Amino acid sequence: MAAFDVAEYRDRLARVQARMAEAELDVLVCVDPANLHYLTGYDGWSFYVPQAVAVARFAGEPLWIGRAMDLAGARLTTYLGADSLFGYPEEYVDARDRHPMAYVGRTLRDRGWARGRVGVELDSCYYTARAHAELTASLPGATLVDADLLVNWVRLVKSDAEVAHMRAAARIAEQAMRAGIEVIEPGVRECDVAARVAAAQFGGTPEHWGDYPAALPSLPSGARTAAPHLNWSGARHVAGSVTYLELAGCHARYHAPLARTVSLGLPPAALERLAHVVGEGLEAALDAARTGRTAAQVEAAWREVITRAGYRKASRIGYPVGLGFPPDWGERTASLRPGDTTILAPNMCFHVILGMWLDDWGYEISETLRVTQAGPPEVLTDFPRRLFVKA
Amino acid sequence: MAAFDVAEYRDRLARVQARMAEAELDVLVCVDPANLHYLTGYDGWSFYVPQAVAVARFAGEPLWIGRAMDLAGARLTTYLGADSLFGYPEEYVDARDRHPMAYVGRTLRDRGWARGRVGVELDSCYYTARAHAELTASLPGATLVDADLLVNWVRLVKSDAEVAHMRAAARIAEQAMRAGIEVIEPGVRECDVAARVAAAQFGGTPEHWGDYPAALPSLPSGARTAAPHLNWSGARHVAGSVTYLELAGCHARYHAPLARTVSLGLPPAALERLAHVVGEGLEAALDAARTGRTAAQVEAAWREVITRAGYRKASRIGYPVGLGFPPDWGERTASLRPGDTTILAPNMCFHVILGMWLDDWGYEISETLRVTQAGPPEVLTDFPRRLFVKA
Repeated sequence: MAAFDVAEYRDRLARVQARMAEAELDVLVCVDPANLHYLTGYDGWSFYVPQAVAVARFAGEPLWIGRAMDLAGARLTTYLGADSLFGYPEEYVDARDRHPMAYVGRTLRDRGWARGRVGVELDSCYYTARAHAELTASLPGATLVDADLLVNWVRLVKSDAEVAHMRAAARIAEQAMRAGIEVIEPGVRECDVAARVAAAQFGGTPEHWGDYPAALPSLPSGARTAAPHLNWSGARHVAGSVTYLELAGCHARYHAPLARTVSLGLPPAALERLAHVVGEGLEAALDAARTGRTAAQVEAAWREVITRAGYRKASRIGYPVGLGFPPDWGERTASLRPGDTTILAPNMCFHVILGMWLDDWGYEISETLRVTQAGPPEVLTDFPRRLFVKA
Repeated sequence: MAAFDVAEYRDRLARVQARMAEAELDVLVCVDPANLHYLTGYDGWSFYVPQAVAVARFAGEPLWIGRAMDLAGARLTTYLGADSLFGYPEEYVDARDRHPMAYVGRTLRDRGWARGRVGVELDSCYYTARAHAELTASLPGATLVDADLLVNWVRLVKSDAEVAHMRAAARIAEQAMRAGIEVIEPGVRECDVAARVAAAQFGGTPEHWGDYPAALPSLPSGARTAAPHLNWSGARHVAGSVTYLELAGCHARYHAPLARTVSLGLPPAALERLAHVVGEGLEAALDAARTGRTAAQVEAAWREVITRAGYRKASRIGYPVGLGFPPDWGERTASLRPGDTTILAPNMCFHVILGMWLDDWGYEISETLRVTQAGPPEVLTDFPRRLFVKA
């Protein structure tokens, strides 16, 4: 019932265990929902309560430990045997005097996994300060060490099966973008655009069902486009304004993000010029995303183009994507920015996002790419690379 | 531009400061996105990076501290003055060697808010173990103490303005439920149901724009209904099966959740009987949700009905709702379950959810209610309380 063949999960486990050996970890306790899914297939909107997957360096199967109510979901979505699934009773939920992480610790002790060096995801959303204190107290014979992003770094290079999911997600992203651009008109509410975009995202295509992306679309109107990360409101689009759409297609938890900008009316000259320069910078960055280059070199290619034209951008221009759960489709490892020495390799996938926010409006364009064996990347998302003008 | 009048924010602040006095806190650092919104109006999909709102017991305005890129969004969505907004530079994002919480600590030091007892949300998603370590290290002159849920307990009693938002959310929930039940038929993919439901959720009504709920719908088909918290997949609904829809309407970040179950074909006798008993139990629970009763008494009224009929349910039957951000629309304070001594008061709002998962299928029905001054509650959601049969 899990999303991939068992062989793929075994390969992922072996790669994680190899990194655990490098880090001299005996056990790894993951709480990032994407890492739970990556290691076991687990999929459910249960990450608002504590849950974990534990990996031992020399054991053949991870343990899934979550809320008892969610054992049924674990049976339905993971490849794990019944002996590897543990559910904490309901009285642990939202209780002041007991914590699910103490149950996780007890499960590890019962399994004989409570000795040596135990890695934890110290800076992962969902690994709270209290969770860490409870797990530490429940594992007195172990030393807890920071292993944040260990699995995320393994996820950086995708399997061909994962890439196939991302190609499906890209078809969905294109369809959602088309739907959004089509419906944006003066007088239309932002929320009505969101409705059309989400229907295209979730419905997917006849071949590929649409899953929910780890973040919902940003599609502000008017002055709100001057800020990133605003989703939508009941405000109406107005003639003569600029709006961007940042969204992802998602298939079976794999993402392909895509952003484009729409001008409702003839674009001001400043916007046209910016869009032109950003477009050149995007081509330069895409061309630079080759095996053997560093993440910083990709950003440098972009920056050279825009600096020459008199623009600057303080923030990074991209990050790895693939598997993701709320709140974020980014993988939190490499960043396309100065100083990042990550060396690109085949089947790494990045969202290259060029967002320029000025005082009164913003411009965004992005693509999702896959690094290839040689030559320029495969751009997974296939959508006209331009400012869309609806006049 | 903030969602409520400044007077409402001042009232919220005063109530939080009163609780801070009881807890002998000088400063409170919140990271829960719902608490950020509650205290300042801040709204943006930026909670995947660290951000905080700090409240001092004797100061007139909180501080918003987030990513520099999101300052524009803070200006657009909060009532705070420019002096109260602080943005950390881009090099803090996804960096191994520096952490945004150190910037938060420095901001508090610069403001003279780094002494005495500083409350933190120790078990809030988004308050990671590393965030706590970094904040602790950056506030050597302060004592950090657990103040988890302090603001959540203040949020338990809604203002009339908040209730108005929840009534709007209830209209959206009803519309989304109608759309979902209408489209479910044998042969229809779960994702196509999700598309219709989301379009109704996000589009909202002509009067009330639809916002994204803190959790996306659960609408599994067939055997997958035997588990809670599965969203949807590409599986097709099959004749003779049972399916439930659990969703929320959301308006301006306020929620009204609603669940119903659909039988595709004449329901098995066991389901009909269960639905009947659960319906009686629901009425009993709703009737018991009155000012002066405890949360435990509400659950006891339900349990008496189902025990008499030979059923049992291990998990709680409800929790407070209102404002929410991913991953959860629940407020994490009271629970409708044995032992919970929370005394119900006017304008507390609860999602009463009766989920019964059997081996092969599940049955769910829920309502969102507001406790009134006297007598039974106002049930915000208005939808026929029955098992829907499509034969």
